[in-house]
Amino acid sequence: MKEGESMVYSIQNNTAELLTTEQYLTKYPFLCPYQPFVDTIKNHGINSCKADIFSDFICGTLLIPDKRNPAEKEFCLSYYLSKDLLVLIEDKKHINNLETIIEQRKIMNVSSLPQFLFLLAESLIKDDMVRLQDYETHLAEIEDVILSGKDLNMNHSLIDVRRKLLRINAYYQQLSDFGSELEENASDFFSPADIQHFSVLSNRAERLLNYTQFLREYALQIREMYQSQVDIKQNETMKILTVVTTIFFPLSLITGWYGMNFRNMPELRFPYSYFILIGICLIMVIAEIWFYKKKKWI
Amino acid sequence: MKEGESMVYSIQNNTAELLTTEQYLTKYPFLCPYQPFVDTIKNHGINSCKADIFSDFICGTLLIPDKRNPAEKEFCLSYYLSKDLLVLIEDKKHINNLETIIEQRKIMNVSSLPQFLFLLAESLIKDDMVRLQDYETHLAEIEDVILSGKDLNMNHSLIDVRRKLLRINAYYQQLSDFGSELEENASDFFSPADIQHFSVLSNRAERLLNYTQFLREYALQIREMYQSQVDIKQNETMKILTVVTTIFFPLSLITGWYGMNFRNMPELRFPYSYFILIGICLIMVIAEIWFYKKKKWI
Amino acid sequence: MKEGESMVYSIQNNTAELLTTEQYLTKYPFLCPYQPFVDTIKNHGINSCKADIFSDFICGTLLIPDKRNPAEKEFCLSYYLSKDLLVLIEDKKHINNLETIIEQRKIMNVSSLPQFLFLLAESLIKDDMVRLQDYETHLAEIEDVILSGKDLNMNHSLIDVRRKLLRINAYYQQLSDFGSELEENASDFFSPADIQHFSVLSNRAERLLNYTQFLREYALQIREMYQSQVDIKQNETMKILTVVTTIFFPLSLITGWYGMNFRNMPELRFPYSYFILIGICLIMVIAEIWFYKKKKWI
Amino acid sequence: MKEGESMVYSIQNNTAELLTTEQYLTKYPFLCPYQPFVDTIKNHGINSCKADIFSDFICGTLLIPDKRNPAEKEFCLSYYLSKDLLVLIEDKKHINNLETIIEQRKIMNVSSLPQFLFLLAESLIKDDMVRLQDYETHLAEIEDVILSGKDLNMNHSLIDVRRKLLRINAYYQQLSDFGSELEENASDFFSPADIQHFSVLSNRAERLLNYTQFLREYALQIREMYQSQVDIKQNETMKILTVVTTIFFPLSLITGWYGMNFRNMPELRFPYSYFILIGICLIMVIAEIWFYKKKKWI
Amino acid sequence: MKEGESMVYSIQNNTAELLTTEQYLTKYPFLCPYQPFVDTIKNHGINSCKADIFSDFICGTLLIPDKRNPAEKEFCLSYYLSKDLLVLIEDKKHINNLETIIEQRKIMNVSSLPQFLFLLAESLIKDDMVRLQDYETHLAEIEDVILSGKDLNMNHSLIDVRRKLLRINAYYQQLSDFGSELEENASDFFSPADIQHFSVLSNRAERLLNYTQFLREYALQIREMYQSQVDIKQNETMKILTVVTTIFFPLSLITGWYGMNFRNMPELRFPYSYFILIGICLIMVIAEIWFYKKKKWI
Ligand SMILES: [Mg+2]
Ligand SMILES: [Mg+2]
Ligand SMILES: [Mg+2]
Ligand SMILES: [Mg+2]
Ligand SMILES: [Mg+2]
Ligand SMILES: [Mg+2]
Ligand SMILES: [Mg+2]
Ligand SMILES: [Mg+2]
Ligand SMILES: [Mg+2]
Ligand SMILES: [Mg+2]
Ligand SMILES: [Mg+2]
Ligand SMILES: [Mg+2]
Ligand SMILES: [Mg+2]
Ligand SMILES: [Mg+2]
Ligand SMILES: [Mg+2]
Ligand SMILES: [Mg+2]
Ligand SMILES: [Mg+2]
Ligand SMILES: [Mg+2]
Ligand SMILES: [Mg+2]
Ligand SMILES: [Mg+2]
Ligand SMILES: [Mg+2]
Ligand SMILES: [Mg+2]
Ligand SMILES: [Mg+2]
Ligand SMILES: [Mg+2]
Ligand SMILES: [Mg+2]
Ligand SMILES: [Mg+2]
Ligand SMILES: [Mg+2]
Ligand SMILES: [Mg+2]
Ligand SMILES: [Mg+2]
Ligand SMILES: [Mg+2]
Ligand SMILES: [Mg+2]
Repeated sequence: MKEGESMVYSIQNNTAELLTTEQYLTKYPFLCPYQPFVDTIKNHGINSCKADIFSDFICGTLLIPDKRNPAEKEFCLSYYLSKDLLVLIEDKKHINNLETIIEQRKIMNVSSLPQFLFLLAESLIKDDMVRLQDYETHLAEIEDVILSGKDLNMNHSLIDVRRKLLRINAYYQQLSDFGSELEENASDFFSPADIQHFSVLSNRAERLLNYTQFLREYALQIREMYQSQVDIKQNETMKILTVVTTIFFPLSLITGWYGMNFRNMPELRFPYSYFILIGICLIMVIAEIWFYKKKKWI
Repeated sequence: MKEGESMVYSIQNNTAELLTTEQYLTKYPFLCPYQPFVDTIKNHGINSCKADIFSDFICGTLLIPDKRNPAEKEFCLSYYLSKDLLVLIEDKKHINNLETIIEQRKIMNVSSLPQFLFLLAESLIKDDMVRLQDYETHLAEIEDVILSGKDLNMNHSLIDVRRKLLRINAYYQQLSDFGSELEENASDFFSPADIQHFSVLSNRAERLLNYTQFLREYALQIREMYQSQVDIKQNETMKILTVVTTIFFPLSLITGWYGMNFRNMPELRFPYSYFILIGICLIMVIAEIWFYKKKKWI
Repeated sequence: MKEGESMVYSIQNNTAELLTTEQYLTKYPFLCPYQPFVDTIKNHGINSCKADIFSDFICGTLLIPDKRNPAEKEFCLSYYLSKDLLVLIEDKKHINNLETIIEQRKIMNVSSLPQFLFLLAESLIKDDMVRLQDYETHLAEIEDVILSGKDLNMNHSLIDVRRKLLRINAYYQQLSDFGSELEENASDFFSPADIQHFSVLSNRAERLLNYTQFLREYALQIREMYQSQVDIKQNETMKILTVVTTIFFPLSLITGWYGMNFRNMPELRFPYSYFILIGICLIMVIAEIWFYKKKKWI
Repeated sequence: MKEGESMVYSIQNNTAELLTTEQYLTKYPFLCPYQPFVDTIKNHGINSCKADIFSDFICGTLLIPDKRNPAEKEFCLSYYLSKDLLVLIEDKKHINNLETIIEQRKIMNVSSLPQFLFLLAESLIKDDMVRLQDYETHLAEIEDVILSGKDLNMNHSLIDVRRKLLRINAYYQQLSDFGSELEENASDFFSPADIQHFSVLSNRAERLLNYTQFLREYALQIREMYQSQVDIKQNETMKILTVVTTIFFPLSLITGWYGMNFRNMPELRFPYSYFILIGICLIMVIAEIWFYKKKKWI
Repeated sequence: MKEGESMVYSIQNNTAELLTTEQYLTKYPFLCPYQPFVDTIKNHGINSCKADIFSDFICGTLLIPDKRNPAEKEFCLSYYLSKDLLVLIEDKKHINNLETIIEQRKIMNVSSLPQFLFLLAESLIKDDMVRLQDYETHLAEIEDVILSGKDLNMNHSLIDVRRKLLRINAYYQQLSDFGSELEENASDFFSPADIQHFSVLSNRAERLLNYTQFLREYALQIREMYQSQVDIKQNETMKILTVVTTIFFPLSLITGWYGMNFRNMPELRFPYSYFILIGICLIMVIAEIWFYKKKKWI
């Protein structure tokens, strides 16, 4: 698309247009009477997928996050759809990508404006399942490492994945609501065939949502397992501490005992009492080790 | 609005009025036959957004909390809507703000009474998304601080945010129910175009609700992470305690041992035994440090 | 109401009656063919709000718990409603209270039997919002005390509030189901205006349910905070133990060391070594305190 | 019912039959074309309540667990219902109980086959509310014991109750689905009056389900409280350990100190230093006890 | 099925075909206009059960996991269904199994193409309930072992079961959505009798889903119990540590005390003081053991 020029597609006597924000505001200053839609375009304030359906037009926004880093936007466009006009508004930076997609997927060859919108939305999510499967692979790796007990520092990776999945979850919920909103409430606008397309889109978004929820529950189970591992490790540390204390405190008491300076301690004077004591101490240590071995503490 | 005078707007042969509690009770003492509505006005007892739909009138309340401190009310008004009359009742303090909003947004230029109510409700939530995004920024800051491990006292900030989000969540649920109640059950009152407006309002409230739920789940994940950090710190404290005990208890036993006062302890008399003991102790300490280093406890 | 006499209200050619269990069983032994309804009356076995809708009559029960102590019943009545007869059955103890309510709220002036039932049900929940707000105030107090860290024994109060809220939650769910059951399935019985009344009742019960759920989630957040406080306290106790152990064990080893009885320990004989040792110990203690101060453990 | 003979009831020109598995397979080998139904009967494989609705017949199973021990079955029967035939298939052991119930409740006096099935299903759950209330009493006892702190071994009872409630929950969900399946999808088979009966059954099952869910949440709150008690006990154990360590370690150091064998320790020679030391030690102990009393640790 | 040959079944003038991926791409290169369906076949990218319903055809995939190891696929086929043609596409490896199932269950004798699809889907899940019951048996074993306290290492088995159940849960949800999608939206394609078959399939999948959810909640309760056991064990370890410390520290202090080298310690010189001390120490130990026995710590 050249500078200052807008893309115009002719769809069965109707028109689909691809405009930058500036072009839209110049060309169609009074097209959409719904004030919040115009405000959103002016403020570049797109933050969700949505469709607001009025009696003579539909307007809304589409936001496609980068699945690998869902806090970043991949595309964000506004659209206005009436009986004979579809306007797509993107900012300057991404508008050429959008044009490429429209041409590669041959979206301009459709038979109605709603189908144009449907095919565009579908193009933008077509590889999502593969990208979500990368998350599953990553989670399985984290699970293996934590289960093996080698590295309990996978917690940070897990937190990162969970935050990303939470954002992706919110996105697919919006997309599914977008599709079903159009499916359910736009029968004045759309032919039954068009409505079936939006039903397919909504179902597809819902399947992606279900898979995301599966991944989130998987991540939650890994976190619970991690928590268990931390608790088990703590139990083991505690057992070591208790074993060490139980072995050394009695011996320590014995040595303290015969370090007392009472004049009249007969044991101190018998010539073999030192060697007898060594024997007693050895027996005590062996008994305690045997006891804790049996208890499986060491 | 001057003292004692009420605002009256003429909407397509019908009337919309803005009244204080006192003005309403004086002017329309028997307007609304639904007793709880009158009680609410008398007691200034507005605590939710709601719509009660009867066969010849709709009455209800709107409560808009201050999003930054949702325990405080920003606006709270009652409304009564019949075929040809819309009455809005606010207390004296905020009624001028309401008048300003109506004039700034040009709400009096609408084509029907329900649309008046719709545009007013929408004006009152128009900047909410931006204010909710402040919560997301705040949560991200709290998360960074906790993840860095610098300060585990962010717990109080987090508790505060969660309490606020819980309240905001309840509010958007009410607003969404308010919109969908009007959308679904008021077809005797409203034209199809009016109903579509309330559908747009309800969807908007639901999107804000979804975003609030996203924020609450984000806050919950941060809390879980915080909990993990507390548990990990405790594990580390425990490890330090165990390492210190395991190193010093055996050495302590040895010193206690040679502090015993048995007459017949041959080691005490050999001239190099003290220096041999120093060597043994050093080896023990080094071996234990090496062992715990390998275990990654220190 | 006098002994042995039943209250009879005439509503637009139809009859509403207020009876004790005994009066009902004597006067209408074969009125209701649905066996479980009769069994419930005979056994005084009312334990929920419900409506069973048959093709020529509706029967059910209403149970209003004491909101401040929801394990206790405030009212529990059975009702039987056909086209021209409404029978309300209460036990002897509370029936006069019911009569008082009917007269104070002027319920006998309604224009249909279903509206009689609606107004009665509404009277019984009219002050509930205020009573629920007492729970919110109580929870806020508990939260403040726990947050301040002064008293961790608020756990018992919190458990008590949570148990009560759980019971209130179940009650409003029943009441909301009762209203929507009548709203949805009783179109053979009720005029559209009557149905709208039951819709208002159901919505009101649902708003109370939503507020109860808000309170329960608030209580849950307080419990989680309490749990965090307990864990943090434990961490602090552990740190004190570790600090004390880390400071005193090395000093203890040193004193044990120079308490050994080897003949050939040159340090013991140097005249200043005792004073050098005092210096070394002081430096060790100061270094450790500085270290733990920096770590913010003490 | 005598050996080899089947029970036959005549309901308004139609037939209801009570058969054992063997009788069914002999008498009606090709009645039901839905293969899984026949397989279930052959394998005695009933494990849920269900209804499969086809265009000319309905078939399914009913499983009634023993509420006091829900892993055991009380009744399990298969049924086949067409326009003019209802067949109930039970195994030999319980079929006489079923016959008794049909006669006691006078189920054979109904006016249609679906009503026969409805009354039978209702008879099988008629005392359930009372049995569920036993669980509530039991849970309240467990709660009291745990709250009193006397016995933390109630955990096993609680686990047992929770497992049973989980199973009962699944059962009422099936029964409620069974009723609403018949209510919603069997309008070709059933008259409106019949359908209203299944609606009453479904609502009744749902109320029992709601009560079960109430009990499960109650059990969950008790478990959380138990968990808190365990954590608080652990905190107290830790405090005792810390207090003991903090009191005895410094005293122990002092005694170790004056057990050192340096030649030049002037304190050892002053005649009153021993008694001064006793004083210092007493002051230290008293100060520490006072400190921990103030901290409410002991 | 021989190499290079495809299975063709004639169903009431219509055709059902069983093809490998290669056969499909050769024989019907332009059959399905929905691009993602063709992409899925080309990439062997089947990862869910789904149905996309368009105005003149239905396409989708079926994935049947191995219930004992649900990360592995047992079958995965694509299907295309129009008014007069049903195409089933499997990869080469499993296509013969599919043929066997079709012949064993006599699926080719049905009266319509949708019923062919229904019977096939049902055959693929017919033994699932039995396989799920194996999970219940396994969970009950794990529970017994953990409850007995013998082996806390069952955690790994439990984690494995929970991961498998999570995957099975997602699968039945898809299958239930698949059935209800066909039931609800395909009335242009299917006769009422066909639709009732898909309703039966959907209900069956939902019952399996409900049972899976029951198993998952059971697993969750076992995990919570496991967590409690870990906490209780830790409490016991802590108590042992505290008891050992409380008994030995005071004795140790006493021995340290009389190991001090003050010149003027009168007790050291009394001839019986050593034996008196032995008595005092014995009394202290006995008192402490009695105290902890009473507290039920040992
Ligand atoms: Mg979300
Ligand atoms: Mg899901
Ligand atoms: Mg879903
Ligand atoms: Mg999550
Ligand atoms: Mg933990
Ligand atoms: Mg813990
Ligand atoms: Mg809420
Ligand atoms: Mg939603
Ligand atoms: Mg959401
Ligand atoms: Mg929502
Ligand atoms: Mg929350
Ligand atoms: Mg913790
Ligand atoms: Mg912990
Ligand atoms: Mg409940
Ligand atoms: Mg709610
Ligand atoms: Mg609700
Ligand atoms: Mg709760
Ligand atoms: Mg804890
Ligand atoms: Mg702990
Ligand atoms: Mg369940
Ligand atoms: Mg329910
Ligand atoms: Mg429920
Ligand atoms: Mg419930
Ligand atoms: Mg539970
Ligand atoms: Mg715990
Ligand atoms: Mg799932
Ligand atoms: Mg379930
Ligand atoms: Mg379900
Ligand atoms: Mg789970
Ligand atoms: Mg734990
Ligand atoms: Mg713990």
